[in-house]
Amino acid sequence: MIDLQDPIFIAHEGGKLRTSSTVPLESREDLSVAYTPGVARVCEAIAADESLARTHTWRSNLVAVVTDGTAVLGLGDIGPAASLPVMEGKAALFRQFAGVDAVPICLDTKDPDEIVAAVAAIAPSFGGINLEDIAAPRCFDIEDRLKALLDIPVFHDDQHGTAVVVLAALTNALRLQDRRAEDLTVAVVGAGAAGVAITKILGEAGVGDLIVCDSTGIIHEGRDRLNPVKARLAEATNRSGRSGGVAEALKGADVLVGVSGGTVPESALEGMADNAIVFALANPTPEVAPEVAARHAAIVATGRSDYPNQINNVLAFPGIFRGALDAAAPQITEAMKLAAARAIADIAAEDLAADRIVPSPLDPRVAPAVAAAVEAAA
Amino acid sequence: MIDLQDPIFIAHEGGKLRTSSTVPLESREDLSVAYTPGVARVCEAIAADESLARTHTWRSNLVAVVTDGTAVLGLGDIGPAASLPVMEGKAALFRQFAGVDAVPICLDTKDPDEIVAAVAAIAPSFGGINLEDIAAPRCFDIEDRLKALLDIPVFHDDQHGTAVVVLAALTNALRLQDRRAEDLTVAVVGAGAAGVAITKILGEAGVGDLIVCDSTGIIHEGRDRLNPVKARLAEATNRSGRSGGVAEALKGADVLVGVSGGTVPESALEGMADNAIVFALANPTPEVAPEVAARHAAIVATGRSDYPNQINNVLAFPGIFRGALDAAAPQITEAMKLAAARAIADIAAEDLAADRIVPSPLDPRVAPAVAAAVEAAA
Repeated sequence: MIDLQDPIFIAHEGGKLRTSSTVPLESREDLSVAYTPGVARVCEAIAADESLARTHTWRSNLVAVVTDGTAVLGLGDIGPAASLPVMEGKAALFRQFAGVDAVPICLDTKDPDEIVAAVAAIAPSFGGINLEDIAAPRCFDIEDRLKALLDIPVFHDDQHGTAVVVLAALTNALRLQDRRAEDLTVAVVGAGAAGVAITKILGEAGVGDLIVCDSTGIIHEGRDRLNPVKARLAEATNRSGRSGGVAEALKGADVLVGVSGGTVPESALEGMADNAIVFALANPTPEVAPEVAARHAAIVATGRSDYPNQINNVLAFPGIFRGALDAAAPQITEAMKLAAARAIADIAAEDLAADRIVPSPLDPRVAPAVAAAVEAAA
Repeated sequence: MIDLQDPIFIAHEGGKLRTSSTVPLESREDLSVAYTPGVARVCEAIAADESLARTHTWRSNLVAVVTDGTAVLGLGDIGPAASLPVMEGKAALFRQFAGVDAVPICLDTKDPDEIVAAVAAIAPSFGGINLEDIAAPRCFDIEDRLKALLDIPVFHDDQHGTAVVVLAALTNALRLQDRRAEDLTVAVVGAGAAGVAITKILGEAGVGDLIVCDSTGIIHEGRDRLNPVKARLAEATNRSGRSGGVAEALKGADVLVGVSGGTVPESALEGMADNAIVFALANPTPEVAPEVAARHAAIVATGRSDYPNQINNVLAFPGIFRGALDAAAPQITEAMKLAAARAIADIAAEDLAADRIVPSPLDPRVAPAVAAAVEAAA
């Protein structure tokens, strides 16, 4: 039974976003500048030189937050209408943390071809496309195709936002422990959007070995019926050729990154190496309770705001798009993501401790620092 | 040569719209209400009862201003990027005059099937669709198909917004002259989006006879190669069975409505009946200069702000969508359009004169009155 007088529902009444004009519209003279006849000159100028659309329209500062509603929070496939409150919240965070305008676009289709066609069709209206809460594995294909089609940044936040913040957190955990990425064995539990992107960015950052588990167990080259994304993972990871379940993956591992939404039993953690690092990021219920993880790990992080070390995408996406828009970058490259991770890590490094490896999501220094690093890397 | 220091370009730098949050996002508590974990409860509630998306998301107050950039102002087919400043201006007017949030969607396709597919795909994000500056005749088909597909209002403003204001103006012209619609012969010069819709609404309002001209001349049933829209016009109009050009259409006519973008020679006006009414609405250059029209007509209106009797869509569309959204109407019916025209006319009727047959576009009474009338008619 829904109680519409509940404060959560009251806060959502009428929605959480608003548009407004940045120019006056009080007089005939105002209208003749912002609308006809004055606006015609700006239109003609853009028709002659389309690059002016990047500076003289609001798309210079505008991101579409696009979803098909198939993987919303931990709720799964709830459809486009029900996903809208999340996308509004995301759009509001863009404005709050980085001054980026953002508009939710919730799509009434799950067909990848139709999603690609719809986003490509509306793209001239926007300066960037933030894909959100689209289920794996089709999120990978959709992002790849849109990146190839469009000359504006396309960024699936569930993949890359999470990956950037995980890399930042791991960077600082290694600083604390005075260790090198090359020496690490990292087990990634979960091979959805986040797991795949985390594996990729940690590989780029020089992690020694990566072992990825999905619900069937460790992904290895001998496994049957791997989809193309997992087949590529099997090739690129698991140098020691392990097979089996999570316990086998964690045997002697230095780092656990949980992005599965499932659980990891304490017994599996017992096999990890000394000074283990555990990021249990499932939300709202981490794969292993932080109190339990702490018995076996030196550093523990979660996705929750009520524990230390909250690994939250909001540390990344506002500044990344701010930097990409400021640079008028046609895409968000791996170098820009790595720069974003470094910038996030560096802010927390000023006051590093086992329970302070990432900045607070509310730290106002983060987005500007990320934006500057991303713009410089663009 | 474009001078970016020109005040028009300075006003457009960075665009004319902004998004903002209507809820606070300063504290962890704020985030837990507007974003995770609190938002999940609203998502689940909408997934269980989709009607809550009409009240507990911003689509309750949100219109998409959709164009393919093919018939922008008088500039023609300038493409989606170049059309964006006009759509931003339109969106800003929605907010300014009726407190309606609006987002420009400029489509990178001119294919009707692709346009319909893209708009249908993004529809769950919006409470209404304002089609804008889409060329005739395909604008008719696109609107009809979207109205059939969607359960939110779809309204092609170039057709219906113009038609509503023309009807309001004609209503007051007849009040001034103490005449009845039934007794009139009206010549509509121009058979594009506006001309077709004006013909339709004047027919619904009881006008005695309508004669429509396109660039080839009077539309009549004997003419070759009429497209389906014009074939229907030929059936529904021209009771006297006229053929020929504009001069033949205006012979003895009581009213000229020019929506052609072309010119009407003074010699043609000479044949009009006494107490003629001339609406020369092409912008920026009326079909006949108001000074010239005044030699042959008792009441003259244009689309320009620097002459009396400005027939401007902004009198209609903000209030029409305000009323439709407030009523949660699934479409904008003919009754709602007629109610809007009456409301606009009634405001000017309080202080009626030959040079005051419509309210000023800046009159703050108009949008609320239109909204109330439309909501009541919904």
